[in-house]
Amino acid sequence: MIIVLKPNISKKDEAAVLKEIRRLGYRPHVMRGVARTVVGAIGDERTHRTLEVLSSWAQVEQVMPVQKRHKLISRDAHPENSTVSTRNVVIGGSKFQVMAGPCSVESEKQLLTTAHAIKKAGATILRGGAFKPRTSPYEFQGLGEKGLKLLAKARRETGLPVITELLSEQQADLVAEYADILQIGTRNAQNFQLLIAAAKTGKPVLLKRGLSMKIEEWLLAGEYVLAHENPHLLFCERGIRTFETYTRNTLDLSAVPILKKETHCPVVIDPSQGVGRADLVTAMCKGAVAMGADALLIEVHPNPTEAWSDAAQQLSIDGFGRLMDELKPFIAAAGRE
Amino acid sequence: MIIVLKPNISKKDEAAVLKEIRRLGYRPHVMRGVARTVVGAIGDERTHRTLEVLSSWAQVEQVMPVQKRHKLISRDAHPENSTVSTRNVVIGGSKFQVMAGPCSVESEKQLLTTAHAIKKAGATILRGGAFKPRTSPYEFQGLGEKGLKLLAKARRETGLPVITELLSEQQADLVAEYADILQIGTRNAQNFQLLIAAAKTGKPVLLKRGLSMKIEEWLLAGEYVLAHENPHLLFCERGIRTFETYTRNTLDLSAVPILKKETHCPVVIDPSQGVGRADLVTAMCKGAVAMGADALLIEVHPNPTEAWSDAAQQLSIDGFGRLMDELKPFIAAAGRE
Amino acid sequence: MIIVLKPNISKKDEAAVLKEIRRLGYRPHVMRGVARTVVGAIGDERTHRTLEVLSSWAQVEQVMPVQKRHKLISRDAHPENSTVSTRNVVIGGSKFQVMAGPCSVESEKQLLTTAHAIKKAGATILRGGAFKPRTSPYEFQGLGEKGLKLLAKARRETGLPVITELLSEQQADLVAEYADILQIGTRNAQNFQLLIAAAKTGKPVLLKRGLSMKIEEWLLAGEYVLAHENPHLLFCERGIRTFETYTRNTLDLSAVPILKKETHCPVVIDPSQGVGRADLVTAMCKGAVAMGADALLIEVHPNPTEAWSDAAQQLSIDGFGRLMDELKPFIAAAGRE
Amino acid sequence: MIIVLKPNISKKDEAAVLKEIRRLGYRPHVMRGVARTVVGAIGDERTHRTLEVLSSWAQVEQVMPVQKRHKLISRDAHPENSTVSTRNVVIGGSKFQVMAGPCSVESEKQLLTTAHAIKKAGATILRGGAFKPRTSPYEFQGLGEKGLKLLAKARRETGLPVITELLSEQQADLVAEYADILQIGTRNAQNFQLLIAAAKTGKPVLLKRGLSMKIEEWLLAGEYVLAHENPHLLFCERGIRTFETYTRNTLDLSAVPILKKETHCPVVIDPSQGVGRADLVTAMCKGAVAMGADALLIEVHPNPTEAWSDAAQQLSIDGFGRLMDELKPFIAAAGRE
Repeated sequence: MIIVLKPNISKKDEAAVLKEIRRLGYRPHVMRGVARTVVGAIGDERTHRTLEVLSSWAQVEQVMPVQKRHKLISRDAHPENSTVSTRNVVIGGSKFQVMAGPCSVESEKQLLTTAHAIKKAGATILRGGAFKPRTSPYEFQGLGEKGLKLLAKARRETGLPVITELLSEQQADLVAEYADILQIGTRNAQNFQLLIAAAKTGKPVLLKRGLSMKIEEWLLAGEYVLAHENPHLLFCERGIRTFETYTRNTLDLSAVPILKKETHCPVVIDPSQGVGRADLVTAMCKGAVAMGADALLIEVHPNPTEAWSDAAQQLSIDGFGRLMDELKPFIAAAGRE
Repeated sequence: MIIVLKPNISKKDEAAVLKEIRRLGYRPHVMRGVARTVVGAIGDERTHRTLEVLSSWAQVEQVMPVQKRHKLISRDAHPENSTVSTRNVVIGGSKFQVMAGPCSVESEKQLLTTAHAIKKAGATILRGGAFKPRTSPYEFQGLGEKGLKLLAKARRETGLPVITELLSEQQADLVAEYADILQIGTRNAQNFQLLIAAAKTGKPVLLKRGLSMKIEEWLLAGEYVLAHENPHLLFCERGIRTFETYTRNTLDLSAVPILKKETHCPVVIDPSQGVGRADLVTAMCKGAVAMGADALLIEVHPNPTEAWSDAAQQLSIDGFGRLMDELKPFIAAAGRE
Repeated sequence: MIIVLKPNISKKDEAAVLKEIRRLGYRPHVMRGVARTVVGAIGDERTHRTLEVLSSWAQVEQVMPVQKRHKLISRDAHPENSTVSTRNVVIGGSKFQVMAGPCSVESEKQLLTTAHAIKKAGATILRGGAFKPRTSPYEFQGLGEKGLKLLAKARRETGLPVITELLSEQQADLVAEYADILQIGTRNAQNFQLLIAAAKTGKPVLLKRGLSMKIEEWLLAGEYVLAHENPHLLFCERGIRTFETYTRNTLDLSAVPILKKETHCPVVIDPSQGVGRADLVTAMCKGAVAMGADALLIEVHPNPTEAWSDAAQQLSIDGFGRLMDELKPFIAAAGRE
Repeated sequence: MIIVLKPNISKKDEAAVLKEIRRLGYRPHVMRGVARTVVGAIGDERTHRTLEVLSSWAQVEQVMPVQKRHKLISRDAHPENSTVSTRNVVIGGSKFQVMAGPCSVESEKQLLTTAHAIKKAGATILRGGAFKPRTSPYEFQGLGEKGLKLLAKARRETGLPVITELLSEQQADLVAEYADILQIGTRNAQNFQLLIAAAKTGKPVLLKRGLSMKIEEWLLAGEYVLAHENPHLLFCERGIRTFETYTRNTLDLSAVPILKKETHCPVVIDPSQGVGRADLVTAMCKGAVAMGADALLIEVHPNPTEAWSDAAQQLSIDGFGRLMDELKPFIAAAGRE
């Protein structure tokens, strides 16, 4: 920690700060500047941040941490890119991957139609929600285990691995039984108990960014997964909440190069949630590919106007086919297959 | 729903919209304006919002909901203020209530010292975290059940009811066994499974606002509690995330009159989390009291510099005493006891 | 500045940083911590911030300024509260002041009616816009000089000093000829040329906070006024832009204690712009008074439904009278007249 | 406008709303729904928005505008893409354009070195600030007219057209005398007087997005330029202010497809201001190109560590050359030259 003292404080007030720093297990190092005296507190600040209390002392102007708090997830800890594999699909390698499927699993017909169609168009992983977190208690909450069974059936028929959202610790084993990748949604991005339960299944975990999560907080939420001995982590940017109302959220594509710099884990972009409008999805996908994302997560529905949730942001099957065609030159330009 | 059509679309495109509205179970009502044609879709839009899909149709400019989505929680449903009672303490009545205590329960001595001191200063409910959600997996995660037992002991000694945070569905019964009010924290404000589990215990639930939760979303999260047959709900504003970095969060005091207008449930303000700096807490409390809040939730620690979490924002016992004195004229001015 | 080096960099890379620090006119001071080496760069960082370039160097993790950048406006420079006086009205003293009047000056009758009514209700300064910044070029842009003349007439009739907005450098002298206080609006809060032009008139300047202005930026914008030799500065919080859509803006009342701590200038709150809804204005005013604001700026119109701008947020004359009555106990509780 | 009435209001209260709608020059059209009565107010709402006042009436729940407020700038008004030309450079056509140069003009040598180097690397327009808006009054404010003369000299030597920022209405003619494109910066994006002054010079205007400007507000600010008879308008996204602190701003690349949909004007992306870190600029540029931007605006300095402003975000000349090479395959994939 760096502790910046106020100008013109007494020797006694300064000594009190130094004493407190020592008492908390750090070694103070005083640096006298032109207008301010600055104290470095030397010690490991990752395990406790008690020095921050000094910011409320009258003689202290500011307390600034200097250490990054993430460890296992850091590129310092693992300089190479890591990859996440599931049933022969490798995310984070030379091949660009596309996860697609409906927002919610609604019926066998809806899911199988979509699964075959997206496979034909080039997608390599099937997405679909069986447990749905809904803003209102009166909205459709997903088919539950029945939905999981349909996902498993679609996998048997198409060979596509399956990703689906986990909402409850109590269902971690159930969902892991059916799914190949467990998705942690934006509303649960700092539900640490759920993250730990997901990690403990051993299955790959896709961690969506919380609606107002800073990069540092997101990295630390991911750290929960690795710290519970599951190295199979994917980060997924899906839009942050800002003042803009034209789009549902603001898709923060700068997350791609930032995550690539800070962490070794693969990066997935979800443009459907990100902008919430099907007519903007194609452009967002092109940007994500060009900027170095490893995969996309896209909502596709055989008839978006009949979707039971998030109808406005789902692509039709034809629309998805056109998107996949339009992405090809950008995937090539990005040096991917 | 109101559907605004684009200008100069063909009769055929307009007819397709009307047909779809009918197919989805609504009755269309056409209104021709100067520059736009607007269609009202008549029907109950609370149970499904499928008409929103029309926003992705080429001939549609905008789709706007007209119904509020919250019901039980609404002042329309319950015009009088509701109150929440626990062990002779009534929140939302004529008496202004103060919940105070340490961020985390750390030891018997720390907790009992605080409990006796805040009672003496006039607080009526004891707060303290036994399960702590922490941004980093390497930070202190709370004493767990041992912390709950200490809270129960403090209640026996002081008679103060106890509020503490619930982090996991699996611990709902355990926490409810010891606590008088269950707190749902900001990171779990849309963890609907946790809300349902808390509701089912039958104990009063204090629902903190999510970091980037709109008022409407917050009301609907509260609706989950009432819809699961627990009417004992408290809303607690604790700061939202904005661009400002001077304070930890931006305490949105306008939530007080807004909640009072939209809902019948009592309103609690947490200035400690809201600003994250003990030196600003007093002013925020005065504002909250003057604006009509029913209670405050304040972090107090016998020695803030030794706190194991959130040290910078906890008041000392002396500081809390001074705060309680300074609040008196404002509580009187607000017509409370 | 504090420069945090990456872990495990070479001696040569470290030496390059030290050399650059020296070249830029600072003296480096090295502090070796457990996980990081930190370098303090000693020198006055207020006049140039070139060290920030180091943040783009490969071996540097972070660059953190330690000095506050505001000077004249700081409480360090002027420990006592300063006051701003105009025509016998003192803002920032023991008397709480209320500025009120219509959003736009629309006609002689509208303005004089309002002026007499607000004076009777206890307001001490008359507000009214003659030059109006409007989001769309097709909206009413204000009466211009004719509006200024009406304001002057209202002042002659009531004795109330007048505050009005200045939009253009070229009109600074014109507006200063008629107005007692020049208002800089939120859209121009970092229009430094306008701030300088306003400062040079010598009249008191009320500086509204920009829609997404951090406290530090606001203080520095105010510093432009004092640096151009005009000490008569008022800060006015009027709501910041956040994700919330229920209110027009989020009124950040924490600005009151923060400004009181950082600067000696008086603090004004504008609840009308802050929430944009007349039905919430009273509660916001009570909060502002309780938290230590020095004055309020309130929109009042003899017939809000006929207002030519911002109709939804203007109080009626009766509503303003009731507000003034309701504020009395809070003004007393805050120790003001 | 659509006016949503509260449920269960009296006939008399409803009649009052209808009467007011008529009085304000609109024709009311009543639509009775399941839970709410909705009134459409038929008339042109672009010139006055007085109906919004109804939102403060007790019997009204919500007032919603249905018309878009921008006209000349809309794709409805001009379905084809428009282009902006200056000295043989066409922005918005088939050729992708790159504007590059230093944040501030500092000296003849600095500027000419940069100008020649960026031209060689493929840039087609030279940027450089002569008048600089600075957060603090104590920071370097630009060379002023001397800077403009150096830009003109660089243009003579290289043939590159020049873009530079205009800060003051009073300098509009001066800056237009030297510059080929006038830039309106983010802090002045709603300084309408400056926009009008820039429009009146007849030179192309590049309008940066304000820090917290919604798309609609940005379009309306652009409308000011076209409404003052200057059709040569460029929109430039340069990052919005969010809660994230890792980057200086959040570059909102979704602005590219949104602007392409709503308006006919060319779209420019400024990644240097957008992220504020040179190490992220390349990835952001790739995204912008892939998503359909017409041009980039990039800060380049012969020696970034010596820059007098914004050092951390400027590319070196070598870095810029590498960027231009890396962009080629993406420009080709986007179907541009």
